[in-house]
Amino acid sequence: MESSPGDNCLTGIRVLDLTQFEAGPSCTEAMAWLGAEVVKVENPGAGDPGRSINPKGGKDAHYFLQYNANKKSVTVNLKSPRGLEIVKDLVKKADVFIENFAPGAVERLGLGADVVRAINPSIIYAQVKGFGAGSPFEKNLAFDMIAQACGGPMSITGEPDGPPLKPGPTIGDTGTGMLTCISILAALLRRTRTGQGEHIQIAMQDAMLQYTRGAFAATTTRGEPAKRAGSGSVMSRNPPMGLYPTKGGGPNDYVYVYTSRANPEHWRRLLGVIGREELIGDPRFETSDARIENEAEVNEMVAIWTRKHDKHEAMRIIGGAGIPAGAVLDTQELLNEPSFAERGIMQTVQHPGIGPYKMTTWPARFSGKPPTLRPAPLLGANNEDVLASWLGMDRDAVGTLRTDGVIGK
Amino acid sequence: MESSPGDNCLTGIRVLDLTQFEAGPSCTEAMAWLGAEVVKVENPGAGDPGRSINPKGGKDAHYFLQYNANKKSVTVNLKSPRGLEIVKDLVKKADVFIENFAPGAVERLGLGADVVRAINPSIIYAQVKGFGAGSPFEKNLAFDMIAQACGGPMSITGEPDGPPLKPGPTIGDTGTGMLTCISILAALLRRTRTGQGEHIQIAMQDAMLQYTRGAFAATTTRGEPAKRAGSGSVMSRNPPMGLYPTKGGGPNDYVYVYTSRANPEHWRRLLGVIGREELIGDPRFETSDARIENEAEVNEMVAIWTRKHDKHEAMRIIGGAGIPAGAVLDTQELLNEPSFAERGIMQTVQHPGIGPYKMTTWPARFSGKPPTLRPAPLLGANNEDVLASWLGMDRDAVGTLRTDGVIGK
Repeated sequence: MESSPGDNCLTGIRVLDLTQFEAGPSCTEAMAWLGAEVVKVENPGAGDPGRSINPKGGKDAHYFLQYNANKKSVTVNLKSPRGLEIVKDLVKKADVFIENFAPGAVERLGLGADVVRAINPSIIYAQVKGFGAGSPFEKNLAFDMIAQACGGPMSITGEPDGPPLKPGPTIGDTGTGMLTCISILAALLRRTRTGQGEHIQIAMQDAMLQYTRGAFAATTTRGEPAKRAGSGSVMSRNPPMGLYPTKGGGPNDYVYVYTSRANPEHWRRLLGVIGREELIGDPRFETSDARIENEAEVNEMVAIWTRKHDKHEAMRIIGGAGIPAGAVLDTQELLNEPSFAERGIMQTVQHPGIGPYKMTTWPARFSGKPPTLRPAPLLGANNEDVLASWLGMDRDAVGTLRTDGVIGK
Repeated sequence: MESSPGDNCLTGIRVLDLTQFEAGPSCTEAMAWLGAEVVKVENPGAGDPGRSINPKGGKDAHYFLQYNANKKSVTVNLKSPRGLEIVKDLVKKADVFIENFAPGAVERLGLGADVVRAINPSIIYAQVKGFGAGSPFEKNLAFDMIAQACGGPMSITGEPDGPPLKPGPTIGDTGTGMLTCISILAALLRRTRTGQGEHIQIAMQDAMLQYTRGAFAATTTRGEPAKRAGSGSVMSRNPPMGLYPTKGGGPNDYVYVYTSRANPEHWRRLLGVIGREELIGDPRFETSDARIENEAEVNEMVAIWTRKHDKHEAMRIIGGAGIPAGAVLDTQELLNEPSFAERGIMQTVQHPGIGPYKMTTWPARFSGKPPTLRPAPLLGANNEDVLASWLGMDRDAVGTLRTDGVIGK
């Protein structure tokens, strides 16, 4: 893979990464894709527990590979005094320190904000927790689904007459990680002007509010909780709008069709596509409000057409006619879609333990090219490299640390 | 509201913001919250169409207020030669230019990347579209739901035996906006080193891959599309894990309970909470695999307990016992939750047209405080201020532009 101008945006920025699972790692991975030197500090035994989530044949799990591309790995026993001392030495050289341990854990390790910021006052010290300091639940454990329950997403996902439902995307984890990344980069930008460090804290519950604001707008407008709307919108009804079944009958053989209230042409164009031009101007269907009254009939006339086409064809024809439309693509179809590889959004890398695999890189293009994907590191793969380049240790010094069990085997 | 150290992270950065609706505005709003001077350039008639999405009494819609806090608004008729000239003059003073018009529109206006970057080579020029340049659908229109259909989220949301479903959070819009913001800030950081400008492009379909990577890990591991898992995980089953009904019987009277496969103590602690200590060590339930075999029984014994408690109490008791748990909170409950206001995550502002309203600010805390919320601007509210401070125009010059219909009334 050729290099991309995105690769060097954050060149020279050193991130000391004590994160695990997804919320923290998704943040530091974004920084790594954009050129930061991200050093994962892992325990010498098993490392980030993400390495062991549904592993295949004892190798690093694909879960881990997804969230740790382009990083380095250093193993340090944080419970040994010498290990802790090494991390404190690394702190002196770092621009960013980030952790997402359970509440209170990093302070018990002796690496709380006060300690780390005293060693390096210009460091950006970032913490990701489930609940905010000062929340009644600040000591509680959280995972993606807990944040999605407590922060709004589940209450607005599901059928109108059904129970709440968890969105499949990991908004609680990666969603929080992205907000953390923005906050860190903003603090780094200030630091270029002022030299100032910062203590950033973000809670997964709080972060969920950022992704559910359309529903909050509906709540403030109407004075009641936003209701679940199936595949419609919690904001407003505007049929036809939703998923329509297509030929094939498989679990994802559907096409989303959206006609905007703001653009009456969408509906008229759609009538042309489905061969019902005679209804253009018909008062039963001409306005949004009329279509809400005749919603079942509207939906059925669209479905009669969509059932005759496969989802790709339906998307091509409806979208091509200037009506927003999208086939429901599953993860295997997306992985196999040639356009992602051609455009560099998905790249194939060689992993020393696993061989070749394909995954997405950072999905923005810089001068036409997304950042270059490199595989996630094996546990401790960069011990020598990082201890030499950050701390100036020679091979003998690193060998002693290894013999003494400070940095694993 | 007192100021927060977050307020000045991006001080001095000028953003020329030609975005509308949500994907673009959520990006520039994050920058505004963190201190950038974000100037929305709107058409003098109706402005950003987001102002008119479910408005109440002809005022700016709450939808608009959510995505445009802390910004300025300037009205310019982009179709008049003098209006276009003014925008080009503003380009000379801007650090960032961003747009999310329909494909081809900004180029037709005469403000394509080549034009803008020729005027100001060090500008960061960012574009948000539905589909990537080079995609078979690059000319298609897209909205949040189209991205969520074509980028994976809908295929992994819903009941295992039901149709795909749209997640309620607007991952297609705000999710894309957050990735755009990270990309812009990274390019700005490089610019402090090298002076270099950049052309950033991001597609909403591509951005969805970033939020669905757990499902891609499952796909790569198993060689098949990730399946919908209701409120469970597309990655793995591990009962008890999911939503359990609580006292009250309302649409959101549920608590999420999660017992981690990585920590067998969660299950044992839960048995203590629900008064079934006699089952600790029982081989029918002791391991994850055993619980999968007896899933219905496991779920029922948890539900017997949760039905006796309201969701808040259930969360407090289960969470307090060291088991990840979360009540399903609706948007009205969240808006009324005192902890958000106390911690500054939600703030109340005075809007000149609407009066006081409460909404979330940027949900990260800087030295303990989230950024200070300011209300979204009225249409054209900052014409004088911006034309004077960016371009040095006096009141007479601005008056002439107004008389000539270049900047609206």
